[in-house]
Amino acid sequence: MRNFDEHNITNAAIDSVREARSPRIKEISESLIRHLHDFVRDIEPTQAEWKHAIDFLTRAGQMCSATRQEFILLSDTLGVSMLVDAINHRLPSGATETTVLGPFHVAHAPEVANGAMISRAEEGPPLLIAGSVRNLQGMPIADAVVDIWHADDAGFYDVQKDETALSSRARVRTDAGGNFHVFGVVPAAYPIPNDGPVGNMLESQGRHPYRPAHVHFIVAAPGHVTLVTHLFLQDSEYLDSDVVFGTKDSLIEALNVAPAELAARGPKPQESMAMLQRNFVLADALDPRKPQRQLI
Amino acid sequence: MRNFDEHNITNAAIDSVREARSPRIKEISESLIRHLHDFVRDIEPTQAEWKHAIDFLTRAGQMCSATRQEFILLSDTLGVSMLVDAINHRLPSGATETTVLGPFHVAHAPEVANGAMISRAEEGPPLLIAGSVRNLQGMPIADAVVDIWHADDAGFYDVQKDETALSSRARVRTDAGGNFHVFGVVPAAYPIPNDGPVGNMLESQGRHPYRPAHVHFIVAAPGHVTLVTHLFLQDSEYLDSDVVFGTKDSLIEALNVAPAELAARGPKPQESMAMLQRNFVLADALDPRKPQRQLI
Repeated sequence: MRNFDEHNITNAAIDSVREARSPRIKEISESLIRHLHDFVRDIEPTQAEWKHAIDFLTRAGQMCSATRQEFILLSDTLGVSMLVDAINHRLPSGATETTVLGPFHVAHAPEVANGAMISRAEEGPPLLIAGSVRNLQGMPIADAVVDIWHADDAGFYDVQKDETALSSRARVRTDAGGNFHVFGVVPAAYPIPNDGPVGNMLESQGRHPYRPAHVHFIVAAPGHVTLVTHLFLQDSEYLDSDVVFGTKDSLIEALNVAPAELAARGPKPQESMAMLQRNFVLADALDPRKPQRQLI
Repeated sequence: MRNFDEHNITNAAIDSVREARSPRIKEISESLIRHLHDFVRDIEPTQAEWKHAIDFLTRAGQMCSATRQEFILLSDTLGVSMLVDAINHRLPSGATETTVLGPFHVAHAPEVANGAMISRAEEGPPLLIAGSVRNLQGMPIADAVVDIWHADDAGFYDVQKDETALSSRARVRTDAGGNFHVFGVVPAAYPIPNDGPVGNMLESQGRHPYRPAHVHFIVAAPGHVTLVTHLFLQDSEYLDSDVVFGTKDSLIEALNVAPAELAARGPKPQESMAMLQRNFVLADALDPRKPQRQLI
């Protein structure tokens, strides 16, 4: 194996993985080499452009921290995350649609009781987040875990702020009737973190960095496909130009006025309160003997 | 723009860059999105595999430092660097062939006089590195800058060792006859740095991490295409399985015995000395009015 030129290098690189440790690693490696080389042949980068790409990836990696994931932002803004999401969620009709996980999920958020306030009062006007979890047959699912997180009314998540305490995020379980509710705040539309390489990329591509206002959910119950989704606020800007391509009509909800009985148990019982409500529908796991697909 | 699924997401992402700041950024962005999405559709990654890719890129970025470039290693080991090199060096017959830059080049290495010793004595048996620089018509090129760097006899570059001083690297200029010579040491074959994500990748792909023994050269002269290449030592292992696909027959040289007159001026004048010799031939720059392509 020597004397490689622009015509034979691809097959040589593919041949080099012939003894890969598993058929899947071989398959992924071969496909990666083929598509990466096709991309290079297509654009014919100068050496300076190649070096720029190396620098871009390096800066992206070095921007990552416990609270910043630049490569997820890159995947999101190139439409890769939504494509991977779509491929992994060819769900039956009737199941709630999925959308991107995003870079701000925190595993093992605190578990709270129904009715808990999960935001700090100063984070914005209160919002009742309420709903149910059901299966495709309409039967309520008790004890489903509903993982909820959202930005504050300035568009920032807890992990983006110089505060150590988590806020506007929690896990709550559905009751015997399959229902849950917590009190958060009304989130604002926001730009994804754009002070790094991905922000530079968006700027050079002539794109704004905004996402419409939304609340994130992961809904999990044994025997069902875990649902990763958002609810988008109907009055938000950017519903038609979400920088991560995440908006779906079926996930847009209007804010209603919370029932007085529930609002009275919230953080500002004397005031009228907004409510975001949704009945989530989970698909049955294809093979309940298999463990659920590991998401994060 | 909303309601994206696995069929329409690619065109949506491509459409998002329609107002890119330059035609070239638009072209590269569109091609990147198309090929990246084709790759994803081809392998249909699970969410766990997607997460693994995010982690891989993050670890690669965080491995990078002033003396470690994991993304260049990734580009090299996937055959991308050699492909970019080939595309950028469609040289006329007779010009010395190119190969990869590699991750160990240091810009602005010290400039030395002809006859200088560029290695420390303890780095290995001395090697006379000598040659000339000529154009395609065979005319010597005076005052060409020859940037030389190589590993020591244990296979390590200066920047990989816990030493602050540069060694086994320098820039020397050709004399009026187009000739140059310095004294280094005989380099060993070596594994590319494989204690990071790229090393993990090679292991999982069933590949060894070795490169055959070689000396790096960048040869630059006004009005000529800058040459980035190696000379490979004929007796080295791994000439047929270079992990970065860099070996070319035309770049393999046998070590000869240095002429006594030159060896006598070297670091061990009493001993016979190995010599690596080459006459480099530079192509004319296509348009001498244009600045030379920026290489690094």
